[in-house]
Amino acid sequence: MEAFLSKWQSLCKSSGSLRFIDINLRGVGQVMFQDNPLSGALFLIAIAWGSYSGGDPQVAIAGLVAVIVGTLTAQWLRVDEESLHAGLYGFNAILVGLALATFLAPGPLLWVYVLLGAAVSVVAKLATTSVVKPWGGALTFPFVLTTWLLLLATYGFSGLPGKALPSGNVVTALQPYQANPLQVIDLVRGVILSISQVFLKASGISALFLLAGLAVNSFAAAAFAIVGSILAVLMAHLLGAESNLITSGLLGFSPVLTAIALGTVFYQPGGRVMIYAAVATVFTVIVQSALNVALRPFAIPALTAPFVLVTWLFLLPRQRLDKALATASEKHTAVA
Amino acid sequence: MEAFLSKWQSLCKSSGSLRFIDINLRGVGQVMFQDNPLSGALFLIAIAWGSYSGGDPQVAIAGLVAVIVGTLTAQWLRVDEESLHAGLYGFNAILVGLALATFLAPGPLLWVYVLLGAAVSVVAKLATTSVVKPWGGALTFPFVLTTWLLLLATYGFSGLPGKALPSGNVVTALQPYQANPLQVIDLVRGVILSISQVFLKASGISALFLLAGLAVNSFAAAAFAIVGSILAVLMAHLLGAESNLITSGLLGFSPVLTAIALGTVFYQPGGRVMIYAAVATVFTVIVQSALNVALRPFAIPALTAPFVLVTWLFLLPRQRLDKALATASEKHTAVA
Amino acid sequence: MEAFLSKWQSLCKSSGSLRFIDINLRGVGQVMFQDNPLSGALFLIAIAWGSYSGGDPQVAIAGLVAVIVGTLTAQWLRVDEESLHAGLYGFNAILVGLALATFLAPGPLLWVYVLLGAAVSVVAKLATTSVVKPWGGALTFPFVLTTWLLLLATYGFSGLPGKALPSGNVVTALQPYQANPLQVIDLVRGVILSISQVFLKASGISALFLLAGLAVNSFAAAAFAIVGSILAVLMAHLLGAESNLITSGLLGFSPVLTAIALGTVFYQPGGRVMIYAAVATVFTVIVQSALNVALRPFAIPALTAPFVLVTWLFLLPRQRLDKALATASEKHTAVA
Repeated sequence: MEAFLSKWQSLCKSSGSLRFIDINLRGVGQVMFQDNPLSGALFLIAIAWGSYSGGDPQVAIAGLVAVIVGTLTAQWLRVDEESLHAGLYGFNAILVGLALATFLAPGPLLWVYVLLGAAVSVVAKLATTSVVKPWGGALTFPFVLTTWLLLLATYGFSGLPGKALPSGNVVTALQPYQANPLQVIDLVRGVILSISQVFLKASGISALFLLAGLAVNSFAAAAFAIVGSILAVLMAHLLGAESNLITSGLLGFSPVLTAIALGTVFYQPGGRVMIYAAVATVFTVIVQSALNVALRPFAIPALTAPFVLVTWLFLLPRQRLDKALATASEKHTAVA
Repeated sequence: MEAFLSKWQSLCKSSGSLRFIDINLRGVGQVMFQDNPLSGALFLIAIAWGSYSGGDPQVAIAGLVAVIVGTLTAQWLRVDEESLHAGLYGFNAILVGLALATFLAPGPLLWVYVLLGAAVSVVAKLATTSVVKPWGGALTFPFVLTTWLLLLATYGFSGLPGKALPSGNVVTALQPYQANPLQVIDLVRGVILSISQVFLKASGISALFLLAGLAVNSFAAAAFAIVGSILAVLMAHLLGAESNLITSGLLGFSPVLTAIALGTVFYQPGGRVMIYAAVATVFTVIVQSALNVALRPFAIPALTAPFVLVTWLFLLPRQRLDKALATASEKHTAVA
Repeated sequence: MEAFLSKWQSLCKSSGSLRFIDINLRGVGQVMFQDNPLSGALFLIAIAWGSYSGGDPQVAIAGLVAVIVGTLTAQWLRVDEESLHAGLYGFNAILVGLALATFLAPGPLLWVYVLLGAAVSVVAKLATTSVVKPWGGALTFPFVLTTWLLLLATYGFSGLPGKALPSGNVVTALQPYQANPLQVIDLVRGVILSISQVFLKASGISALFLLAGLAVNSFAAAAFAIVGSILAVLMAHLLGAESNLITSGLLGFSPVLTAIALGTVFYQPGGRVMIYAAVATVFTVIVQSALNVALRPFAIPALTAPFVLVTWLFLLPRQRLDKALATASEKHTAVA
């Protein structure tokens, strides 16, 4: 694998087109913090499979178009080469493309939206990085902000009808329901789909490709993804969340990202960091539910906002924490 | 004109009262980034005409009272003389006064609100500038924040009934309607009123005075205002926005401000900047619709929040953009 | 008193358990900015009395558990000793515990929530301090953020039913009602309960213990609390707020905190500062009403968010204000 990657790198140096492909693949990989074209390729397969098997092939196409537009926008803006080559301007763009095509009905204006959204996500990435640089990365906040604005706006535009948007309601007390009849098999399903929902997919096969994509670059990342997902599903079950939210992975995808980010990217793995990351992961389940509720009046999905909020909250104290927690390698910090 | 202005400046130096008038006029001019008393005077005429012809003379009076209170507050707080003299503590105050008198019914408590709102807008201006200084100006955020809080609070106070406030609703899917029967003349009307709505007016004559006020200080600003307005109206029409929102200028006033700010104030005009500003202007239409939707449950108007949000988003990357985009003259940067 | 405190301090130096008690008592005292174990003890009595007389003894227990968990979390995170010993990691935790037990029904999951919320409040305190350090303290923002998220999330969890949560509604115009028949005695009641509501209690006796707790450490703080409360009740009455909100102290507790913070902690008392703090206090009443309204669709309480927002707004300009306003002693600035 090492040999293959170094071969590929030397090919990229000599060919502009291969370099362009490399940048886009790394952009896909960076959705889960992996600066590795192979991870990106495996993630793309996961997306393609999930879209095709779900009957929505245009979702994968929108994602692909968006990551390319994101890269082209970053090149036009002449961003610094190092972060461009690490794919840092692609991961928000692809998520914008996937989300728009998932929540909005197909049509020509959808593609206007994908192009504009992908381009704006790059500006938002630059803007967010400027603000949060003292303590961490932009994470997927540019994706969340851009997509929220684009989705909210559709309620004022007749040209962009929704397809899978939630409906708007004020917050009301949860109707109590019978004890949750979830079986272990349902919980396992929830754990697996929590991983694929990072890319807005409910597919076990996609989840396997995603785990493979993580593992080729970092075993720790794959392990933290699985453990984070298990923790999230158990916590959601303990608190009495709705069964279908748990089993479809909709309460677990943000905690998966929190676990990877805090456990392997920004802090170096270790005993105290694992406890810290576990508390953050469990708290992300609560924030996921909180944002699901808070967004009800607006009829838009929470996306990965819970992950962003909790990860920032748990990254900010770094300067004030002791070394056992605070030693993130510079290389990793630069990554996102 | 130059001669007249330099004569006026030397008069201001010798007379405290003329200086005070100059500061307030510049405060009005700064709503559209013009540090020029003549611009301010023409803007005031536009406001007076719009209020009088709309049957709401107290709106213009509230604006005038507010800008004076804003200036007095800034003097009491002993802010630095340079920004005081440039009118930087007046433009949020006048907008607070205009908005409160536009959305709330007349009455003695309205004037308590105008006085308090104008004074607080100065504190909010100082506060915002402290936060956003690394990347840009406070823009009209102090106006938006202060006015939102004051308007929201009225729903808890029997002494301050609304007059033109929107009604509260959860977000629901837009009812599809027949193809938009807008004629070119309607679009032209939308373009013109988008300019006058910067000061919350729907008046073509006001728009002409505003354009004159821009042109006496900066031809580029007037040109960017017109082109920004055209872009906004076309984009809104393309996406299928409601006809009456388009023709009354309610989707175009924030984009007009974005176009002026990004095209002439913070970046220096040029080919690449024009593309950048055009994307931002078009995106402001989407954000205007998004915030209109997001504020439905709260029954308050979006004001110029879309302009502030998009302009900050597109200003923040400055440090990381290449010189062709990033060369804003220091003088201009200091302006807002 | 001085003698007693210095005796106590020397005992704390020699005994880990006494030091731990001291830290927790100061944590309670810091809710109202008093770095003094005696203040904390008197505040605890106020809480205990309010909970017991209100028939909710578990509220006081939840507060006590939370402050201890907060201190233990801070110790585990190895925060700097000076701020730990000043109780700066306890005041948000106790408020989280009190609020959760006040708004949610008793049950085993409530205690999971209290433990998790108290621990997260310490992380949120570290995070907030990192962001706001240039201009001021974290205030009770960590409490507000943590509690909002925990409360919102309960609407998605069947295991955590509410007890005293508001019900969700879109914002609608206030039904005009007859002239407010409040007597002077009602206003006095409002003034007193505004003080006890800082700790979510409606009890005159609790208010007296709180004032005693302030006075043993700072007469100025006690005086500003009373004057701030009077100003708030009068302003709310003038604007036509609902009588029962006024008389139960629900519009006055945030202004009380604003008055203490701006009048005695961050600025040094003086003529100009008193005017500045008075404007801020009066504006806090408006922001309290605004946030009450803004949170209606979400069915959660505003907590002390109005105090945090207004105090930050009026603290941020410090760098730019003249010395008469800006001279906060370093000791005080470090406190919160």
